[in-house]
Amino acid sequence: MTLSENFRMERDSLGTIKVPKYAYYGAQTQRAVENFQISSKRMPRSIIRAQGIVKASAAKTNMDLELLPKSIGSAIMQAAEEVIHGKWDDHFVVDVYQAGAGTSQNMNANEVIANRATELIDPSLGYGRIHPNDHVNKNQSTNDTFHASMQIAAIEKINDKLLPALEDLYQEFDKKSIEFMAIEKTGRTHLHDAVPMRLGQEFAGYANTIRSVTNQLKLSADKLYEIGLGGNAIGTKVNSHPDYPTLVIQEVNRMTKLPFRQPENIFEFMQNTGAPIRVMTTMKELSIHLIKITSDLRLLASGPRTGLAEITLPSVQPGSTIMPGKVNPAILEMTHMVCLQVIGYEAAIANAGTASQLEINVMMPLIAHTMMESIEIMYNAVSTLTTKCISGIQGNEEICKHWMNSSLALVTAMSPIMGYDRASQIGKEADEKNITVKEVLKQKGLLTPEIEKAMEPKGLI
Amino acid sequence: MTLSENFRMERDSLGTIKVPKYAYYGAQTQRAVENFQISSKRMPRSIIRAQGIVKASAAKTNMDLELLPKSIGSAIMQAAEEVIHGKWDDHFVVDVYQAGAGTSQNMNANEVIANRATELIDPSLGYGRIHPNDHVNKNQSTNDTFHASMQIAAIEKINDKLLPALEDLYQEFDKKSIEFMAIEKTGRTHLHDAVPMRLGQEFAGYANTIRSVTNQLKLSADKLYEIGLGGNAIGTKVNSHPDYPTLVIQEVNRMTKLPFRQPENIFEFMQNTGAPIRVMTTMKELSIHLIKITSDLRLLASGPRTGLAEITLPSVQPGSTIMPGKVNPAILEMTHMVCLQVIGYEAAIANAGTASQLEINVMMPLIAHTMMESIEIMYNAVSTLTTKCISGIQGNEEICKHWMNSSLALVTAMSPIMGYDRASQIGKEADEKNITVKEVLKQKGLLTPEIEKAMEPKGLI
Amino acid sequence: MTLSENFRMERDSLGTIKVPKYAYYGAQTQRAVENFQISSKRMPRSIIRAQGIVKASAAKTNMDLELLPKSIGSAIMQAAEEVIHGKWDDHFVVDVYQAGAGTSQNMNANEVIANRATELIDPSLGYGRIHPNDHVNKNQSTNDTFHASMQIAAIEKINDKLLPALEDLYQEFDKKSIEFMAIEKTGRTHLHDAVPMRLGQEFAGYANTIRSVTNQLKLSADKLYEIGLGGNAIGTKVNSHPDYPTLVIQEVNRMTKLPFRQPENIFEFMQNTGAPIRVMTTMKELSIHLIKITSDLRLLASGPRTGLAEITLPSVQPGSTIMPGKVNPAILEMTHMVCLQVIGYEAAIANAGTASQLEINVMMPLIAHTMMESIEIMYNAVSTLTTKCISGIQGNEEICKHWMNSSLALVTAMSPIMGYDRASQIGKEADEKNITVKEVLKQKGLLTPEIEKAMEPKGLI
Amino acid sequence: MTLSENFRMERDSLGTIKVPKYAYYGAQTQRAVENFQISSKRMPRSIIRAQGIVKASAAKTNMDLELLPKSIGSAIMQAAEEVIHGKWDDHFVVDVYQAGAGTSQNMNANEVIANRATELIDPSLGYGRIHPNDHVNKNQSTNDTFHASMQIAAIEKINDKLLPALEDLYQEFDKKSIEFMAIEKTGRTHLHDAVPMRLGQEFAGYANTIRSVTNQLKLSADKLYEIGLGGNAIGTKVNSHPDYPTLVIQEVNRMTKLPFRQPENIFEFMQNTGAPIRVMTTMKELSIHLIKITSDLRLLASGPRTGLAEITLPSVQPGSTIMPGKVNPAILEMTHMVCLQVIGYEAAIANAGTASQLEINVMMPLIAHTMMESIEIMYNAVSTLTTKCISGIQGNEEICKHWMNSSLALVTAMSPIMGYDRASQIGKEADEKNITVKEVLKQKGLLTPEIEKAMEPKGLI
Repeated sequence: MTLSENFRMERDSLGTIKVPKYAYYGAQTQRAVENFQISSKRMPRSIIRAQGIVKASAAKTNMDLELLPKSIGSAIMQAAEEVIHGKWDDHFVVDVYQAGAGTSQNMNANEVIANRATELIDPSLGYGRIHPNDHVNKNQSTNDTFHASMQIAAIEKINDKLLPALEDLYQEFDKKSIEFMAIEKTGRTHLHDAVPMRLGQEFAGYANTIRSVTNQLKLSADKLYEIGLGGNAIGTKVNSHPDYPTLVIQEVNRMTKLPFRQPENIFEFMQNTGAPIRVMTTMKELSIHLIKITSDLRLLASGPRTGLAEITLPSVQPGSTIMPGKVNPAILEMTHMVCLQVIGYEAAIANAGTASQLEINVMMPLIAHTMMESIEIMYNAVSTLTTKCISGIQGNEEICKHWMNSSLALVTAMSPIMGYDRASQIGKEADEKNITVKEVLKQKGLLTPEIEKAMEPKGLI
Repeated sequence: MTLSENFRMERDSLGTIKVPKYAYYGAQTQRAVENFQISSKRMPRSIIRAQGIVKASAAKTNMDLELLPKSIGSAIMQAAEEVIHGKWDDHFVVDVYQAGAGTSQNMNANEVIANRATELIDPSLGYGRIHPNDHVNKNQSTNDTFHASMQIAAIEKINDKLLPALEDLYQEFDKKSIEFMAIEKTGRTHLHDAVPMRLGQEFAGYANTIRSVTNQLKLSADKLYEIGLGGNAIGTKVNSHPDYPTLVIQEVNRMTKLPFRQPENIFEFMQNTGAPIRVMTTMKELSIHLIKITSDLRLLASGPRTGLAEITLPSVQPGSTIMPGKVNPAILEMTHMVCLQVIGYEAAIANAGTASQLEINVMMPLIAHTMMESIEIMYNAVSTLTTKCISGIQGNEEICKHWMNSSLALVTAMSPIMGYDRASQIGKEADEKNITVKEVLKQKGLLTPEIEKAMEPKGLI
Repeated sequence: MTLSENFRMERDSLGTIKVPKYAYYGAQTQRAVENFQISSKRMPRSIIRAQGIVKASAAKTNMDLELLPKSIGSAIMQAAEEVIHGKWDDHFVVDVYQAGAGTSQNMNANEVIANRATELIDPSLGYGRIHPNDHVNKNQSTNDTFHASMQIAAIEKINDKLLPALEDLYQEFDKKSIEFMAIEKTGRTHLHDAVPMRLGQEFAGYANTIRSVTNQLKLSADKLYEIGLGGNAIGTKVNSHPDYPTLVIQEVNRMTKLPFRQPENIFEFMQNTGAPIRVMTTMKELSIHLIKITSDLRLLASGPRTGLAEITLPSVQPGSTIMPGKVNPAILEMTHMVCLQVIGYEAAIANAGTASQLEINVMMPLIAHTMMESIEIMYNAVSTLTTKCISGIQGNEEICKHWMNSSLALVTAMSPIMGYDRASQIGKEADEKNITVKEVLKQKGLLTPEIEKAMEPKGLI
Repeated sequence: MTLSENFRMERDSLGTIKVPKYAYYGAQTQRAVENFQISSKRMPRSIIRAQGIVKASAAKTNMDLELLPKSIGSAIMQAAEEVIHGKWDDHFVVDVYQAGAGTSQNMNANEVIANRATELIDPSLGYGRIHPNDHVNKNQSTNDTFHASMQIAAIEKINDKLLPALEDLYQEFDKKSIEFMAIEKTGRTHLHDAVPMRLGQEFAGYANTIRSVTNQLKLSADKLYEIGLGGNAIGTKVNSHPDYPTLVIQEVNRMTKLPFRQPENIFEFMQNTGAPIRVMTTMKELSIHLIKITSDLRLLASGPRTGLAEITLPSVQPGSTIMPGKVNPAILEMTHMVCLQVIGYEAAIANAGTASQLEINVMMPLIAHTMMESIEIMYNAVSTLTTKCISGIQGNEEICKHWMNSSLALVTAMSPIMGYDRASQIGKEADEKNITVKEVLKQKGLLTPEIEKAMEPKGLI
């Protein structure tokens, strides 16, 4: 087979270009492939699916508005449906680091759908009758459609994957909180002896932290529903039918069963990528708290012999290639790393937000793939955390009680009785003599029944 | 005067220490002063005021619960009122970089109030009858009170200063948007020629961006109302009366006229500094958008002769020490810098959030002063931006029209008529021949009345 | 084929586990695969290659020290060589988000090499005679070997790819600087009219910025040569031969032709991931400057009709799906996005650095893959930038001259003659009357030959 | 006194303005004061001092080049000397958040020096004979002088304060390392039992980490010596004498006894703020490692009864307002907070670096004050850390030994003897039965003398 048999020649405004013979994409995609050999990563399934939804909805609306002949419109819709279901994923070939705004990504969709739609109408026909720009992209621009696509992809994954994963995590912490409510332990502040508490209270804190940030995520994600389809290149709806915005969003809502709406102001939507930025700030908030919680759990599970050992984590794999029998908090560490990455991704998206200039933000491909990667690794990490770690945590009642009874902070109970200053002296003496607070009191003849009762940890919790 | 005449000796659990004779603070504050010679910055007025509110509310509640004698309680309340109104600010002397949790800051308040209250009861008495810990700090810990104080300070400033400043900014952009709606101009995407729009549309985008983030700030700030007063050291309410939390928050609400409430879960409150973290993520969101907007305005105002010059900013000061007559976008640059700083502060607070360990977060003094500094410089910057810059912006109609008519993107109007590919060729030709799109059409004999009409910018907007 | 025919059973300290029948990896890798279904990303080729280098070097050294029988050692070496050359990449299957320290990644290498080495000795034998831990991992721990592997991978890519790419970029900017030295243009500060300069001077600034940061990268990367092989689990060289560290590094150097060395202090090496952190701070420095430069170029190339248009970028692809003929600064935007991502990755690695606890940093897999990804996308972006953008930039002499002659800052030349204050008034008048500085002077009868000469742009450059 | 008696009227290109009667600054400073009511923070002493150095050096050079009459030049020099020594600090009144580039800050210096110099020549004269721009700022622009001033300030403080503080910290860690070399303890990886080590080894790691980053700081800071004085507004040396750059830097070097030099390329210097950006990346590297070290020390000192308690920190102040006798790791926490702030400041400066546009970076005032604040709080924190914490740390030999002997990782010693798999089983059994490794071996009759010897911690270290 000669070289010419592997390729076909296509043409765009910059001239002719060789495209792989069986590729459904065309000249503009091919230029992007050649221009951007950066990471070998492509946009994720969720984005391609959302692009398909937008293209199908546009075609339907254009047919309804009699802007597209039925034959062409139907073929586009069918091709777009196939894109939605992943049939042509191999033909979405543009690197995630591409030109700003996502023009190449949009053209990739336009070309694949145009070529496939042409084929559907008349297989013998060859490419060309249905045009990527004039037909598939009708009433659209990259600036409104790619922007909308990334928001559709994000909210679908948040709703379908991340929120349920967070709900499960909350439930598991809540369950553990109840399970551990009888276990008395020492509190620790500044990593130093503090007053007693219950292990279940600690886990209740974790549970409610997850619940609070989950609720905030729902609030933040709401802005993803504002999609400015029909705003076109810069929000002025140039070349666009006046009824198009309303109708196309209705169609997207029908397909996704989600309540997308027009932005309060279309220029705000075009100028910024406000919704991704907002969602990511809450993804960061979530990451911060997960780092705190997973770090705490590693501290509480430290040992088994040389640490606090108040809880035991389920063993999921051997922990060392040189220290036999070692089992490490692998799932917690993985979660911590995912959170650090998401915080890094948020930084990238935030800085990309500041780089918006005038009518649009040309950092959109970065924002899109980084946001989607954040959501994906986060829900996988959270699910794994719940099922492979939290659900199997055991509380070590004996060890917890041992630490609690040693805590110098039991002297806090003395404070209301003898005053802060005298109580401080007793605490200090216990520390210096390396004995318990109770023993100091006994030595000093101060261990009255009243005080003995006051020092019962139960009363302090 | 001998040295001994300038100082008095005080004592705490670590021994005796010299304190300036007329200082209202005592031994623990003095230790902190000596330990932390870091930045010479002290906690801001807003935090000291909030500490006074918490101490006054606690004293009132303790009196009501008959845990403090009326004489002592009333004196504490009066002293705390004086702290609220700034009378003793000079006696709040601890560096902002101090021990974790803010213990020194809390003791500074406790000591100042105890000494001042003692003085109020009997000026001849000398310090000591009212105890900083046993009386002023009764039913309290640093961990709940300092934490609550920073949230009270933050929401007061957000409500009283930042939200009104943002509302003003929104109004000003909105006014300008209406004022500029008749001015036609070119859009620019990727900093390249795009289709026409109105200057007022651009400003409408800015207005609505501010409105959107303002609304988000209200949502995020709501968590500041959750204050776990009475949670004490770690949330277990050790040494605390069961009715104390409800009553003390009622008292804070009476004093501030704000709707503070108990946290859904007290351990969540103690473990994290969730409210500051959340508020700061929205402060970052605000900063991102302000950077975009102020950068845009600098671009639109670039010139006066060598830039876009579509708008003119009010002159506020000479712009160069060497280039006479130069006037720079000083207010916009200042705002940009404030936003960069706030983004940096958010990073500090976010990282501080991940450093929480077990029962509390010992990075609280950093979080407190950094959050308050962010809020303060932000509302000052926003107010200045509104009054000294936005309100005086003028649109340069002639220049805007000139750019609009030169834009190669006017060819977009051809696309629905002659198709994307032919329109592209015409655009390319205009570019290469360095003439307008209209001229190319004329040369080619394509300038039909239909096309001439289609190319009217008015129709494209 | 029944299920049992597709799998074999393997065993580790946690029990038995099913492993795909033809997999060269074993039980521990399989556990990791099941534990970590997070991102579907695996460690890059460069890391696997470096793991092979470490394992081959260790085997050679162990043979030389007579700690491994020749037959086993040689088989391990051969298998490791195959790993180096990519033969078994498909068998490196652990998600990049895995347990801390990279234990699973190290075991993946140990198992693949052990199984392959066993096969090499006696194909009929089945797995097992050569042990992943006892033989392949001999004298090693994950903590020293995975750590060393990521540094080997990083410096190889920096030397082979990134530094040459940066050198090319420098050369190209330098060439352009010479090419453009005759083009006079206006300077702009604060985006406002400033004194004249040459386009070549602007590009000389870019060239030297790249050179400066390239030199800094060389300095920072030097720490990558410190590899603590033989430090083992925590630096104490437990279970390790005293001559092992020296010899194994000699072997690595022989294989890589690079000057690796023992760390000044092995505990410093084990505790931190200091070298990646340091390299990444300079990757960030590079990113910052590339963002500045690519943003400048987009500004200078803005237009073609509605912007500064002082330079023209090569066209690489159509720029809009709706605006025909539009060509955008695609390569510059892509580079900007890559830089934003690298800055985000640096944030992740920096935060991971703070998460090191006691003897090691368990965020190593994140650090490894994020650093390598940063290096890879950076050198691809830089190469693309050089060849597809910088090398084709054209200076637009006429437009540059036009802007220069309009600049109000030409009045600066008056300052030494008539003083700053009077010159300011003339600049202001030119601005208000919308005429040039020269015209004001003429109107005022001040345009003496001396002043006319002083205002010659040539003299100001 | 009437209002007019408190003020004098001054005039600049924007008109007249009221200036406080006894202020040495003038109209332009006053405008900046009114424009920028943002933070009430002013530039630090170190910057004002450096501005004085630049102005004195410029005056000297201008006199030598016969560009300034002796009488004027000498008066400026004397006034600038007074600025250097802090005599007029109260007259440097511009908010740190001011117009980009630092024009107001430069004018503040120009005006104070001009007015003071005028006064020195003839006290009866009133302001005006010596002109802030024409004389004091001669051969200068804000863009080269303020930029140079911040680099002079930074390197002076790094050399005089930060590097010595870091050297002291290194020495103290090194001393402790030697002191603690006899103390055997358990290592911990993943916070889990690891093989034995010496407490002194851990501290040797800390010492060398500090040394390594200190050396890197020296390398990074070198770029601060490149100061482009004479580059003027944009690097073209407009209105500047050809010998000025060489001579003025010689003069700065004479005054500071430091080796400043001209930049390799003046346009690189003007375009970027490369030196501050670079220095701050290393300040971040330092912060990362200090966070790791101070976090470790808090972990090792955790307790006194409910934590690891391997070391005891010196008590510097009471730790709780409610828990008497509590002593917290206050100095370590403060250091951690300072490091978090510096990381936040680095983010601000890095983002400011990306905001440079064309000929200069207008975020310079932010960069200047944030860098100086970082350096100042860092050296104060490091000094305090060394003297109030590290130097007083005690190692708790008994506790260290106790943990070491309990560690399950002692089974590592078995690995070379019985293989990784059997050793793993023994480790696992010890864990499950809650006994020591030795006891398992004894129960199994495996505790041969050879093995007993192998398990001696001494041999493992």
